Amino acid sequence: MTQQLDQHTSTLVSVRWHEDTLELLDQRVLPGQIDYLKLTEVLHVWHGIHDLVVRGAPAIGIAAAYGVVLGTLNKQYADRNQWLNQVITDAEYLATARPTAVNLFWALDRMKLKAKALAESTCPIHDLSAELLLEAKAIHLEDEEVCRSIGEHALGLFHDGMGVLTHCNAGGLATARYGTALAPMYLAKERGINLKVYADETRPVLQGARLTAFELQQAGVDVTLICDNMAAMVMQKGLVQAVIVGTDRVAANGDVANKIGTYGLAVLAKAHNIPFYVACPVSTIDMDTPNGELIPIEERHESEITEAFGTRTAPSGIKVYNPAFDVTPNDYVTAIITEHGILKPPFHISLKELTTKLQHKP
Amino acid sequence: MTQQLDQHTSTLVSVRWHEDTLELLDQRVLPGQIDYLKLTEVLHVWHGIHDLVVRGAPAIGIAAAYGVVLGTLNKQYADRNQWLNQVITDAEYLATARPTAVNLFWALDRMKLKAKALAESTCPIHDLSAELLLEAKAIHLEDEEVCRSIGEHALGLFHDGMGVLTHCNAGGLATARYGTALAPMYLAKERGINLKVYADETRPVLQGARLTAFELQQAGVDVTLICDNMAAMVMQKGLVQAVIVGTDRVAANGDVANKIGTYGLAVLAKAHNIPFYVACPVSTIDMDTPNGELIPIEERHESEITEAFGTRTAPSGIKVYNPAFDVTPNDYVTAIITEHGILKPPFHISLKELTTKLQHKP
Repeated sequence: MTQQLDQHTSTLVSVRWHEDTLELLDQRVLPGQIDYLKLTEVLHVWHGIHDLVVRGAPAIGIAAAYGVVLGTLNKQYADRNQWLNQVITDAEYLATARPTAVNLFWALDRMKLKAKALAESTCPIHDLSAELLLEAKAIHLEDEEVCRSIGEHALGLFHDGMGVLTHCNAGGLATARYGTALAPMYLAKERGINLKVYADETRPVLQGARLTAFELQQAGVDVTLICDNMAAMVMQKGLVQAVIVGTDRVAANGDVANKIGTYGLAVLAKAHNIPFYVACPVSTIDMDTPNGELIPIEERHESEITEAFGTRTAPSGIKVYNPAFDVTPNDYVTAIITEHGILKPPFHISLKELTTKLQHKP
Repeated sequence: MTQQLDQHTSTLVSVRWHEDTLELLDQRVLPGQIDYLKLTEVLHVWHGIHDLVVRGAPAIGIAAAYGVVLGTLNKQYADRNQWLNQVITDAEYLATARPTAVNLFWALDRMKLKAKALAESTCPIHDLSAELLLEAKAIHLEDEEVCRSIGEHALGLFHDGMGVLTHCNAGGLATARYGTALAPMYLAKERGINLKVYADETRPVLQGARLTAFELQQAGVDVTLICDNMAAMVMQKGLVQAVIVGTDRVAANGDVANKIGTYGLAVLAKAHNIPFYVACPVSTIDMDTPNGELIPIEERHESEITEAFGTRTAPSGIKVYNPAFDVTPNDYVTAIITEHGILKPPFHISLKELTTKLQHKP
């Protein structure tokens, strides 16, 4: 299998656009199988996001942006307004695929804004969708640059020989490339800096075991897989000197929503005097949500826990609680690492300053 | 499946002795299958313990005690000394099956002591094994009483409507009956006191999902299954007011070795001002081990993590760290609940007092 994977590594991207088709790497079957689903309908993009074919906050934003373009293709429009309505309808529908990651809404808002501008422009009606596609591609391309930038800033916090713990997958598979939390690990590898990464397997969907361990192994990074409940012992034994995770939404006060288990890690990190870093693009910061308690937390189907990967491992009829995310209060967060630099507490000030500055950027 | 299980519930014991055969409920295939393995060889008992057919500190002690008897059967002895040597050889071999649970060594030491006394007694040589069997049966029967007593003491700490979190399986399947950490839940149910139990699934072997959720559900206890990494959120939301776990060994200073993940729970409980209780028989207290750092921690095969229940969920060749237990320092433990009452910190004093008192008991 390794050989089969090796030859794919360089092209293993989570989202790609090819001849009016959106191709999503099916992350549900990694690392055993490498399948790209080819989508031409908005409905299928919705299911691709909802059912975790594509996951990771930046990647679902990119997929949704292309999804909006797909919805406009192969249709006849009486006028530009009808085209715009199609975009808005599809964007609003795609926004319901998952409730927590703000990048989804951010990307869809950006696509709607662009579509409105195009509808009001002199662009010929038959070119509108092609122009809109350029915006989706811009979101896609910018994400790669953004991730690289996050990696540069984060790498400044790490040093050769350091142990670093991560949770879920905030890697290349969750973004256009490099990832957010994993970006410094890729850059460290490129520069001969050795990091010893511990990857939580991340129940119930095992993104850590299936995706993070896989992509770091492929990149030649020193990675060790553990169960989520081993993180405390890894800290107790002094094996890691930092925790770094991605996020699906940062509230205006610096509270962080991320994959279930993140909050527990943050509490454990504090108890062991280990810094807890959150890496994300600015598009993940939601200044319209004052604090983490207001972030909607998706609860998923019980079968994710009771029938993991085909084998039933819990009694029939058992009650299950399956929140997909948790919220880490800002006082557990040492720093938030963005493409524009490292934000320190108090976050209600540093986040406000950064987002205000970017709004007024020429 | 539920119906099939229902009819077995009343007889679902982890260890039983029947016509010179040791029968072990195969806990590896629960709750889907109910299989008893019938053992007549010490070698098979060793594998039954090592391979987790039987698990739970008290239950493996009971199984090992019967195992020693098995080793003496169907053999001819030149003299009583030869019989005694057989017992000692088998006991020493069985002690190597797992390194952490002290009940295994405690039960085997008790069997060796009894065998020595018998060898020195006037008991006819052909009756020695039958007499030794009575000692194994005594260990077995006493455990049920001990568990019930632990439950009585623990129940005094709980009240109607309370949420309680537990980890791994310290229930009826881990003991002769009732369990240690789960004993108060059974007694509460008998008395119409409602507890809302949250059961960690307990990766990698899922004893919480497969055993705890199963046995509490069968008993009609209100139990909700969560992944290990959800415990912090359950505490954050105020859903539990106590954590209670079993243990494989308590050191003389009150440090507690238990299933991997226990230490993290203890840190989380402290951070949320939730009491953290450890329930165990006195036989789990090891006054010969001064502190937890000296308790040997078993590391198990990586396939428990990478190929959970038949499906490979991690890349080939990935490095894995798989400690089966962790050590919770005594300062995270609110109380240790034994059959002789509730011990409070400082544990180096309360444990010493209790064990000294019991040694001098008439």
